[in-house]
Amino acid sequence: MDGIPRKTWTSMLLALAVASGALAQTDPLPSWNDGAAKKAIVEFVQTTTTQGSPKFVPPEERIATFDQDGTLWVEHPVYSQFIYCLDRVPALVKAKPELANVEPFKTVMTGDREAIARLPMADIEKIAVATLTGMSVDDFRADVTKWTAGAKDPRWKRPYTELTYQPMQEVLRYLRANGYKTYIVTGGGQDFVRTYAEKVYGIPPEQVVGTAGATKYAYDKNGRPFLTKEPKMVLNDNNAGKAEGIYLMIGRRPHAAFGNTAGDQQMLEYTGAGDGARLMMLVLHDDAKREYAYGPAAGLPDTKIGAFSQALFDEAKKKGWTVISMQKDWKQIFSFEK
Amino acid sequence: MDGIPRKTWTSMLLALAVASGALAQTDPLPSWNDGAAKKAIVEFVQTTTTQGSPKFVPPEERIATFDQDGTLWVEHPVYSQFIYCLDRVPALVKAKPELANVEPFKTVMTGDREAIARLPMADIEKIAVATLTGMSVDDFRADVTKWTAGAKDPRWKRPYTELTYQPMQEVLRYLRANGYKTYIVTGGGQDFVRTYAEKVYGIPPEQVVGTAGATKYAYDKNGRPFLTKEPKMVLNDNNAGKAEGIYLMIGRRPHAAFGNTAGDQQMLEYTGAGDGARLMMLVLHDDAKREYAYGPAAGLPDTKIGAFSQALFDEAKKKGWTVISMQKDWKQIFSFEK
Repeated sequence: MDGIPRKTWTSMLLALAVASGALAQTDPLPSWNDGAAKKAIVEFVQTTTTQGSPKFVPPEERIATFDQDGTLWVEHPVYSQFIYCLDRVPALVKAKPELANVEPFKTVMTGDREAIARLPMADIEKIAVATLTGMSVDDFRADVTKWTAGAKDPRWKRPYTELTYQPMQEVLRYLRANGYKTYIVTGGGQDFVRTYAEKVYGIPPEQVVGTAGATKYAYDKNGRPFLTKEPKMVLNDNNAGKAEGIYLMIGRRPHAAFGNTAGDQQMLEYTGAGDGARLMMLVLHDDAKREYAYGPAAGLPDTKIGAFSQALFDEAKKKGWTVISMQKDWKQIFSFEK
Repeated sequence: MDGIPRKTWTSMLLALAVASGALAQTDPLPSWNDGAAKKAIVEFVQTTTTQGSPKFVPPEERIATFDQDGTLWVEHPVYSQFIYCLDRVPALVKAKPELANVEPFKTVMTGDREAIARLPMADIEKIAVATLTGMSVDDFRADVTKWTAGAKDPRWKRPYTELTYQPMQEVLRYLRANGYKTYIVTGGGQDFVRTYAEKVYGIPPEQVVGTAGATKYAYDKNGRPFLTKEPKMVLNDNNAGKAEGIYLMIGRRPHAAFGNTAGDQQMLEYTGAGDGARLMMLVLHDDAKREYAYGPAAGLPDTKIGAFSQALFDEAKKKGWTVISMQKDWKQIFSFEK
């Protein structure tokens, strides 16, 4: 090193400094158009992570929670977990032929999507219990993993796991790069989402909170212990259940929360009730061309499963939560778009 | 830098290399005597974290779980959380005077420790429900924090939080320094332990799994949401509940688990049922002089609350779990010993 002339050495250091400066200024949210939503995210991150800022948040308290369906990936027209449940029914009926003539399995076996869409909530619950419980947790994980690799969305003809929103993936990475622990807090099944969350979102299983059932500990014939999924709810992670689930599973109030339906209302309220800087955001599905327009954007009434209700939209306005317009705020929706 | 002669520069680098080498060889477990227990821990860490080792564990899968009472700190003769409950009874009776003549509160108010020790399990549960539920989670946290700062163990005349085992604190730090996420998995109250775990063990609230109750979401008169602790069990984190709780709250099988009573049996079995390197350890309380001798070490029968039972001791032998003798394996027990 001594052999390098002083001038060269100084130039090298300067070049390094310039390069790292340029790196720091790279846009962390390239799929976002400039606007109030993007500005809110960037300002939140800067104000909570800059030493000396009056709203600085210590690293250990940097918690951000994200709803999944409709916030991180497509939920319309049907949650992909429900498609998984429907896809499992034929194997279920094969194993228990007596179910072929019992509703709602009879309707599911007809494959009539419109009739299936009309099934009442009680029947949907019956399908969920029949297809999501009764097996070992290892068998369940293996089956979901296999399904996820093969099943495709009929519109985009791609695996559901590719239908995540590129702008939200950028928010996840941007928050993590600034010391935030990112959590999924989903009304969907915790066990279901945990099978792919690490691969798809970079979120490890222990940071996925979702609707969860009890398990039962037992031994197989070789004395090896295993857990069976039981038809008994432990956490209904929707509405108030999201705030309760965050308290149960994380034990800290988030500083940022992202949702899109009435099922996310209490999570955002709970987040907003904390001191200091808090970021509450709602994804508005108003892009009929590139994705879907539904809920208040389409002037549609609330659907039976947690719609983005008009009441929530009104609360967002009143409380100053930021609404993300998919149409206006997102330059690109999916990573596969060119 | 150019001004420093080559020889000096080289010496400086060498000195640095030697210093960092020495650092790497510093004993990570100075409070442990050489023996099978210390060796098992060091070998486990080396074999699971050395790249190219056949038993290498990827960083994201490095999970280690620790029982708290009797494993990380003193549990004898009474769990400190139960002392907290007893200490709250006078305020409870003051608020609800009708309880003064109702058992078990009447007995607790006499202060007769022997009579209190004889209370049946159903009465202990009544005390727990009355003192651990019904308040907001924020009020509960504030009250436990205040109690923890003031209450003292009668034998050592120190706060309970100073009665952690120095050798186990070293294991926690050693594992974390090697990329392990350390969790507490306790039969005690999750909310209770979370109030001090970060300060006392360096374990954040989201890595504390314990017996947990439901909470209820509501709004105060200003429309601000808050959570109330309800008298409804969500997770009984003892025995099989520890394996079930790990699945619910972490979603990964631990690679290492530490316990001391029959309540930890299933956690250790579940850990041991995984592939690759797994470390299962039990703390044996056989040091009547420096701490206590109870359970099989003292030839005592099982107590009503998860004793270190003879059956567990036998299973440990059969399965090759490592038993830690406090008397023989630990040079020092508490950090305040000189």
